[in-house]
Amino acid sequence: MIESIQNRRTIRRYKDKEVSQQLLHQLLSTAARAATMGNMQLYSAVITRDNEIKKALAPLHFNQPMVESAAAVITFCADFHRFTQWCNQRNAQPGYDNFLSFINAASDTLLFVQNFTTLAEEVGLGTCYLGTTVYQPQGIINILKLPKLVFPIATITVGWPDEEPQQADRLPLSAFIHENTYQDYTPQDIDSIYSPKESLPENQHFVSINHKENLAQVFTDCRYTKADNESISKTLIEALKQQGYL
Amino acid sequence: MIESIQNRRTIRRYKDKEVSQQLLHQLLSTAARAATMGNMQLYSAVITRDNEIKKALAPLHFNQPMVESAAAVITFCADFHRFTQWCNQRNAQPGYDNFLSFINAASDTLLFVQNFTTLAEEVGLGTCYLGTTVYQPQGIINILKLPKLVFPIATITVGWPDEEPQQADRLPLSAFIHENTYQDYTPQDIDSIYSPKESLPENQHFVSINHKENLAQVFTDCRYTKADNESISKTLIEALKQQGYL
Repeated sequence: MIESIQNRRTIRRYKDKEVSQQLLHQLLSTAARAATMGNMQLYSAVITRDNEIKKALAPLHFNQPMVESAAAVITFCADFHRFTQWCNQRNAQPGYDNFLSFINAASDTLLFVQNFTTLAEEVGLGTCYLGTTVYQPQGIINILKLPKLVFPIATITVGWPDEEPQQADRLPLSAFIHENTYQDYTPQDIDSIYSPKESLPENQHFVSINHKENLAQVFTDCRYTKADNESISKTLIEALKQQGYL
Repeated sequence: MIESIQNRRTIRRYKDKEVSQQLLHQLLSTAARAATMGNMQLYSAVITRDNEIKKALAPLHFNQPMVESAAAVITFCADFHRFTQWCNQRNAQPGYDNFLSFINAASDTLLFVQNFTTLAEEVGLGTCYLGTTVYQPQGIINILKLPKLVFPIATITVGWPDEEPQQADRLPLSAFIHENTYQDYTPQDIDSIYSPKESLPENQHFVSINHKENLAQVFTDCRYTKADNESISKTLIEALKQQGYL
């Protein structure tokens, strides 16, 4: 299993081959062994296989082709709705329409997601994590008919791999661990942490085709801009209010 | 590995036995293979072994004894600080002091956490996830000297197990999966989902010692009250502002 995690890569191209409901259910059931706040299991997984619904979801994920080509698209949601319904039916006064409860439910959800991903990859499936899930949450909420206190956090596309991509680089371990307390980075540390990434041919190619001075500018000016981040933050906060978490 | 995840339980009592730095580093390095937004790796892990610092952290985790008894306490933080420093050193204008960036970094962090937990348990270590990390974040920020755009998300205590607790119950799979779109719960669904949990002797014991009518009231009136959740939500939002994410 250490090898399975060590060798993982994101898979975006899938064979035109079914992933059985039984297998997905088994993996999701086992994934639910992940730690969960007070054993409340504050999540739901919406497994979408229907082509019409996948087609409706696609533009909300910037038309990344995996949404339509994957055997299953699983939208993992923070869910305090089910627990709140239970409280309401038991003459107990729920108090989970607040920001802490959102963070608790989102945390539960992401631990569950990663467990699912590990298990799916262990049996040979390929997965892709769609970070776009929180970009236009209201659209996803409408399509998947998510009630209040259910909020989409992560989407995983799942299928049998039809590619063997190169493994992505990672920062050296020393870049992201700290002993006892946080040791802030000197300018020399930053240079040494990021220079291997900056030297990769594919990254130099991105710099060139985007007519930028360096890789950092590809991130700040093209991929994740301040203007986009601020605009999406507003949309996200609005959707959290709409779903009752703020 | 499927068995390792299937059989997992939270471990709160540890042997008085070192966990080598080399082993922890190896596990954290492999854990970093988890999916990460744009390959930015928006996290840091602060590995605390120093007894004085563990003692200072303990009250911020409601003095749960694992904080002082575990060989290592690892505080996993959402971290856009390192990436922002890099941008600043490259004449690139970072725009990561906003809510979306917090959610992106927190998501990266939690996928990394769960990968670490899986790997640690696979080699026989015991772990406990401390949900208290977001309750009094400012205290943790001060003790661990976290700069702006670094925010504590999850704490894992790690050590060699000195107990074999019973495995916790989980809801039936049908409780938390939905086909194609969200299927809302009928009152009968809720009863059938939660009744096995309500029937467990340990839960009936909690109801009895807390002088409550039922298990849901133990959650709403004792463990996770509306007043606490609302008060902690304010603290959490204040700390997010302080760290530059809101």
